[in-house]
Amino acid sequence: MASQRGSNKRLKIAYVGGGSRGWAWKLMRDLALEEQLSGEVFLYDIDFPAALNNEIIGNKFSEHEDAKSRWKYKAVKTLREALEGADFTVLSILPGTLREMESDVHAPETYGIYQSVGDTVGPGGLMRALRTVPMYVDIAESIKAYAPDTWVINYTNPMTVCTRTLHKVFPGIKAFGCCHEVFSVQRLLAEMLMQEYGFETVRREDIRVNVLGINHFTWIDKASYRDVDLFPLYQQFVDKHYESGFTGDNTKAEPHTAHRVKFDLFRRYGLIAAAGDRHLAEFLPPWYLRDPETVKHWGFRLSPVSKRVEHKQAKIEKSKRLASGEDAPVLKVSNEEGVRQMKALLGFGDLVTNVNLPNRGQLKNLPEQAVVETNALFSRDSIAPVVAGQLPPDVHALVLRQVLNQEMVADAAIAGDKDLAFKAFVTDPLMTIDMEQAKDLFETMLKNTAAYLPWYGK
Amino acid sequence: MASQRGSNKRLKIAYVGGGSRGWAWKLMRDLALEEQLSGEVFLYDIDFPAALNNEIIGNKFSEHEDAKSRWKYKAVKTLREALEGADFTVLSILPGTLREMESDVHAPETYGIYQSVGDTVGPGGLMRALRTVPMYVDIAESIKAYAPDTWVINYTNPMTVCTRTLHKVFPGIKAFGCCHEVFSVQRLLAEMLMQEYGFETVRREDIRVNVLGINHFTWIDKASYRDVDLFPLYQQFVDKHYESGFTGDNTKAEPHTAHRVKFDLFRRYGLIAAAGDRHLAEFLPPWYLRDPETVKHWGFRLSPVSKRVEHKQAKIEKSKRLASGEDAPVLKVSNEEGVRQMKALLGFGDLVTNVNLPNRGQLKNLPEQAVVETNALFSRDSIAPVVAGQLPPDVHALVLRQVLNQEMVADAAIAGDKDLAFKAFVTDPLMTIDMEQAKDLFETMLKNTAAYLPWYGK
Amino acid sequence: MASQRGSNKRLKIAYVGGGSRGWAWKLMRDLALEEQLSGEVFLYDIDFPAALNNEIIGNKFSEHEDAKSRWKYKAVKTLREALEGADFTVLSILPGTLREMESDVHAPETYGIYQSVGDTVGPGGLMRALRTVPMYVDIAESIKAYAPDTWVINYTNPMTVCTRTLHKVFPGIKAFGCCHEVFSVQRLLAEMLMQEYGFETVRREDIRVNVLGINHFTWIDKASYRDVDLFPLYQQFVDKHYESGFTGDNTKAEPHTAHRVKFDLFRRYGLIAAAGDRHLAEFLPPWYLRDPETVKHWGFRLSPVSKRVEHKQAKIEKSKRLASGEDAPVLKVSNEEGVRQMKALLGFGDLVTNVNLPNRGQLKNLPEQAVVETNALFSRDSIAPVVAGQLPPDVHALVLRQVLNQEMVADAAIAGDKDLAFKAFVTDPLMTIDMEQAKDLFETMLKNTAAYLPWYGK
Amino acid sequence: MASQRGSNKRLKIAYVGGGSRGWAWKLMRDLALEEQLSGEVFLYDIDFPAALNNEIIGNKFSEHEDAKSRWKYKAVKTLREALEGADFTVLSILPGTLREMESDVHAPETYGIYQSVGDTVGPGGLMRALRTVPMYVDIAESIKAYAPDTWVINYTNPMTVCTRTLHKVFPGIKAFGCCHEVFSVQRLLAEMLMQEYGFETVRREDIRVNVLGINHFTWIDKASYRDVDLFPLYQQFVDKHYESGFTGDNTKAEPHTAHRVKFDLFRRYGLIAAAGDRHLAEFLPPWYLRDPETVKHWGFRLSPVSKRVEHKQAKIEKSKRLASGEDAPVLKVSNEEGVRQMKALLGFGDLVTNVNLPNRGQLKNLPEQAVVETNALFSRDSIAPVVAGQLPPDVHALVLRQVLNQEMVADAAIAGDKDLAFKAFVTDPLMTIDMEQAKDLFETMLKNTAAYLPWYGK
Repeated sequence: MASQRGSNKRLKIAYVGGGSRGWAWKLMRDLALEEQLSGEVFLYDIDFPAALNNEIIGNKFSEHEDAKSRWKYKAVKTLREALEGADFTVLSILPGTLREMESDVHAPETYGIYQSVGDTVGPGGLMRALRTVPMYVDIAESIKAYAPDTWVINYTNPMTVCTRTLHKVFPGIKAFGCCHEVFSVQRLLAEMLMQEYGFETVRREDIRVNVLGINHFTWIDKASYRDVDLFPLYQQFVDKHYESGFTGDNTKAEPHTAHRVKFDLFRRYGLIAAAGDRHLAEFLPPWYLRDPETVKHWGFRLSPVSKRVEHKQAKIEKSKRLASGEDAPVLKVSNEEGVRQMKALLGFGDLVTNVNLPNRGQLKNLPEQAVVETNALFSRDSIAPVVAGQLPPDVHALVLRQVLNQEMVADAAIAGDKDLAFKAFVTDPLMTIDMEQAKDLFETMLKNTAAYLPWYGK
Repeated sequence: MASQRGSNKRLKIAYVGGGSRGWAWKLMRDLALEEQLSGEVFLYDIDFPAALNNEIIGNKFSEHEDAKSRWKYKAVKTLREALEGADFTVLSILPGTLREMESDVHAPETYGIYQSVGDTVGPGGLMRALRTVPMYVDIAESIKAYAPDTWVINYTNPMTVCTRTLHKVFPGIKAFGCCHEVFSVQRLLAEMLMQEYGFETVRREDIRVNVLGINHFTWIDKASYRDVDLFPLYQQFVDKHYESGFTGDNTKAEPHTAHRVKFDLFRRYGLIAAAGDRHLAEFLPPWYLRDPETVKHWGFRLSPVSKRVEHKQAKIEKSKRLASGEDAPVLKVSNEEGVRQMKALLGFGDLVTNVNLPNRGQLKNLPEQAVVETNALFSRDSIAPVVAGQLPPDVHALVLRQVLNQEMVADAAIAGDKDLAFKAFVTDPLMTIDMEQAKDLFETMLKNTAAYLPWYGK
Repeated sequence: MASQRGSNKRLKIAYVGGGSRGWAWKLMRDLALEEQLSGEVFLYDIDFPAALNNEIIGNKFSEHEDAKSRWKYKAVKTLREALEGADFTVLSILPGTLREMESDVHAPETYGIYQSVGDTVGPGGLMRALRTVPMYVDIAESIKAYAPDTWVINYTNPMTVCTRTLHKVFPGIKAFGCCHEVFSVQRLLAEMLMQEYGFETVRREDIRVNVLGINHFTWIDKASYRDVDLFPLYQQFVDKHYESGFTGDNTKAEPHTAHRVKFDLFRRYGLIAAAGDRHLAEFLPPWYLRDPETVKHWGFRLSPVSKRVEHKQAKIEKSKRLASGEDAPVLKVSNEEGVRQMKALLGFGDLVTNVNLPNRGQLKNLPEQAVVETNALFSRDSIAPVVAGQLPPDVHALVLRQVLNQEMVADAAIAGDKDLAFKAFVTDPLMTIDMEQAKDLFETMLKNTAAYLPWYGK
Repeated sequence: MASQRGSNKRLKIAYVGGGSRGWAWKLMRDLALEEQLSGEVFLYDIDFPAALNNEIIGNKFSEHEDAKSRWKYKAVKTLREALEGADFTVLSILPGTLREMESDVHAPETYGIYQSVGDTVGPGGLMRALRTVPMYVDIAESIKAYAPDTWVINYTNPMTVCTRTLHKVFPGIKAFGCCHEVFSVQRLLAEMLMQEYGFETVRREDIRVNVLGINHFTWIDKASYRDVDLFPLYQQFVDKHYESGFTGDNTKAEPHTAHRVKFDLFRRYGLIAAAGDRHLAEFLPPWYLRDPETVKHWGFRLSPVSKRVEHKQAKIEKSKRLASGEDAPVLKVSNEEGVRQMKALLGFGDLVTNVNLPNRGQLKNLPEQAVVETNALFSRDSIAPVVAGQLPPDVHALVLRQVLNQEMVADAAIAGDKDLAFKAFVTDPLMTIDMEQAKDLFETMLKNTAAYLPWYGK
């Protein structure tokens, strides 16, 4: 007879981008510390040696003396091997190298266009999408062929365009996108309660928020902690810290940020913008990104790719030391929710959290099927979005134009339609330059990243 | 400083229909056994002596030695006194007397039209709506005037039309409708697991269902218990019990029912119909209600109003004995969710359950604003419906015609529009009689219940 | 250089069902009397000898001394020959023979179900759809393959289901459905003006109506003649003739009808029902079709198939006499609009008239893509529906349930899904019989017409 | 008995802005030359002497020997006198004086923002809306009170916001907006046929176009003349004249324009933009309006308000001479359609033309109720929009953001909500300046025009 609980089921997880040194290690640790699950993780990466290294590292995490469950890691050479029979598929890839990202972020600076991250919207986000989408077309087709019933968790940016591509290519796909930016704002609110209002330990998970918008440009119109409405408290908090910013929080995901962009948007629009300031600023006309001085004035900072290069080098060294045994593995639960989501989908108890999903009614005034970010109810083999309501007209005007642009970007990237891509390029809010300059910049950026554009030059 | 929890807050609850001997007593007991809340309950009823009696009874429940919290009950003579300052308002009234219900249920039998309950749809449900809606117009206007921010829980039938009226009259009202019919099907599924599949104690709250439809004509397209998909098990269960019915369950809310209507609908439509057979049958052409023999064949039964008269008499006697102290009060948690919902709305922890709410995207192929029944997420001062998806075309055709009819009934009852009421009357699926006969029956039923129709005869 | 007018273009018209002795002859005459067009008509029919006969007859019409243009008729043996290069494609077929129609109309009478036509809805209309749709699937696929750009004019019943099938199978098809039932009501209004209100010659084309609904169940909510609003006049007209009916009109398309059903619907719903009473009655519960006496009481009549058999025999004889030269061809413009529509589509001047098209906004409260009947603006290579508004709630409830049923019928017929067909069968408003009886009748009717049901018995 | 034609009816026309020396004179001439109508025109203007002058001039036009009908003009001092009993109401006002328009157009130039007209969108269009809308609120309320059944023709800019305000304030109003910009493109196409393709006289009315978009930012996706598809011809035409522009047309409404913006938009988006280049350029990021050189490069020109001042002075002098009899009135039919529209609405024959109306399905991917410009069918007491389809995604992204902004502008102006107005101000595509500069400019422009902002300074 059917089991009362699924605890004995051995899971298969496919990890695409399995050579990753960030998300992958977090997942390995969270799995090792999860007592109700166990199984196998197949690591697939176009950089096969990196996947092999992670096979070693993953197994070390699993064999750690504090581990509560046993997992077997295995690097594989084909997507098919990873996918077949997978219960869950995690997608976390880097489209191209940091050399391409260098172009995404810094090429526009020559024309006076500054981006604080460059991986979501703006000229850089668009180029990144053009590189990533062809890979996602392949992934979606492989999932349709080899694992049509697998649950797919996407972590890759640009989140919206990637997740939308999966659903456009394989409409039946069970794919959703996860991002921790909203968590960082929950943490800010928790910090506010503790530092400003004398609350004792407040966990970010216990901050209730109604989330509505699109990834990295998400908004909160209701927030509470237990029986406390957080809006009047946030109002006072913003008033107090508006000029100087607030840096007393421990929101590691958003370092070096004083939340002044968030505070300014709250003053002007009355909602809590729910992402890091560096992301928020990129979705708007260059109000906060006019030039490096403006950025500094608003208390956040640009992210030069050189820093990423350094960071990556450090990770590679760490990876070597972990694999060789020079460094011992350390187990610690991450702030991510991937494993909690898997458990809910397996029937281990419901979970309400924010995710990116095609709109089928949860956000009334954004288009049907566009990928939106709202809360959703996770339960056994089901993710049902929670009706989030609608964006107020002023915020709607800011968000909808990005949705329309991202739809064009997805279509252009799937079809390899350069003209359509350029139309989206020049209607991005950050693009305040001349048409002729825009053409030059567009061609330059395409050429810089041509190695990852299958249609370029044809 | 803001409290960390609302446990010290003293609530005010308004109970409209506060002389009730069913719902009111259940609520009194549940409140007494709830340790985190306390406060006052104001009882308003057009039968003031009944409210006074309940004041005595409520206070006895509260003073019971096993009670975990203290509540003060108070009968009041005006709606305004009950409403002002109320955190919650419970609506549970009987529109008219059982004499009117006698007409609702039995007058149509003269014309060969049988109804198994007669309080929701069909000629009886329509007449009940005509009587109830004018009262609900008053209530909605009073809430708008005296307690616009109160949460309103409706228990009165016809649920859909009553709840819709509240929202039509006062669009900003925070009103929802609660019904335990879906619970009874969750209990049936729990029973199935225990009796047929060897599961040990299964609580009905742990049966997960995706609910979609309208009150008393609700459907389930996904059901699970922990990691177990219940649809294949239900398929076998239906096959086994299709002919004989299943009577081994303890679903007290649906006595004397063998679930054969439910089983037949499952065979034909592939979804689990989520209400008692007596309710389901009334929403359809007279497939199961052709005549008393057909009813018997399908294993359910008609509910003569004479039984209700007996039952009411017994309750009145019980009431006297409770008030006089002849009978001692007994505390026992009910199967209802009212108190759990209140707690979630106060911020004591989230709750997902099924409720009746205006459609704002949760059920894609029913009209916007029509009152539909789906799951919703209750949290602090918020009820957000869960996106339930859409009804499949065959079931959609059955449900939508009822939605359109109920909209006409609500409009006709609010406006006192006899012609429109008659249009809805003759398009009800149970109405297979001649136009001339229909006119006679309509006039007869109006005349029988004229005392509660403010516009009749004018 | 491009021509200033298309008068020299030689058209190719494909006629599917080209052996027809009704619609085909009307078209032949209208073409012969049209001076701005000329070309070829390809006749395709599964009854090839009938097509051959029509080739002879068509050429005789074209050679008539009063003919204003020259047309060449040619019978062909394959659909492909007819379609390739066709500017227009006319569809007018009989699905099965009158033997099948005998079953459609009369088999249900055994169970007390009367139908006045039996070709649109009701059990007979459903069966006719099951036979016709598989042929329409073939036709749509052939058009996609051989003539994707041809304009397709459908005359076959059930109009809605046939036209819907064309669009479901080949979404890009330029197909619309034409029916003269609305014309007959325009004629009734013209007659009213002349007979009752002293107007001189009033042409039916000059009666302006706003049409909304579905074929054979169409409604008019605005009607005018020049500067005169016809609604107050129609109100008086109905009052005067309500009891006795009105038979003084020359509406040949609707003989032996006293318009009493139309008058009764006007009294009850306030709109002018825009089809013959025999069609209207079939869309409703058996208010007007309870039994032959009821039919007689309402001043219309049933149409026994025996009459059709006689009529067909007479047509066959006429056909022989025309082909042999025994009877001379007579030219006379018909009341149909096919040729006027073709001219408008060729750019010879705009035309506004009522047609059946997928809903893309013209009728707000019927589903998108469902085939609806409203006015449309015909111009060069374009048919743009006119926004007709929405049905009032009471009429909406009557029409929408038919739309949902017809959608099920189309899907069932395309897929050969017997269960789905039965679901539509039992939810038809005329079906007031028991479930068991319904099953018997359904099986009997299927068996009677099995020769035309490709999936039956498999 | 009802008349067969309305020719004897004496009409009452209310003209709000009746001192106008442009639109009013055109209407006077067109009425004088219309033989089927006659009646009275009531002139209301806040500049009563101007209205009085027009009373004299109107009567002179009417008494002209070539006049075909007699009209009586009468200046009145209250809106109520003008409106009561009016069959038609014409709205054509100047909000404020040219001094305010001076600020609208030229104040932004200080910040490097150039506008070629400044009366629709951009900072100038927004300010003009803020001044006009309060007047339109009054007008709509007066129409509701005194002439709820009058047909209202709006000519005032900003067209969209003005027409939307009428419908927001009085939802039952029968108001539509008329603009001749699409006519000018029809004339360009007619000119193209004659000059480039050897067609003889082509009337602009005979150019068929499918119009979709919003006023002054309208697009054509189908165009034909008789049987000729104009798109391939326009493609060649654009290719030939892309660099040099085309100035050989007689489109007086759009002088000094070489259509290069239109040609460039056709190359990029594949649709014919259907307004003058000066209007089109203002709806886009400053692609064509970067600076005066860019404007010159694209072959159009800025319109300094000084020119308008001169033009106005000339009109005033002309007005004096006409009133005094120094200049004789000259009758000549205008290019406007107002009188033709009135005739169609009176039942003198149908008319299809482009108008501005609330969206109720005619333009699928713009919001319901937003005022859009498409074709519509005018007939007796009815304007039914023609379903225009939808904007392609790239153009949609350009148009929808303007629709959202204009909705905010209308709401801000009705409510006197300065913050909301500022939000719309900074999201206009022409606004590429800093937030601080934007605040300065906004305050300056408000102060400049404060005399017409009822809420300013309160």
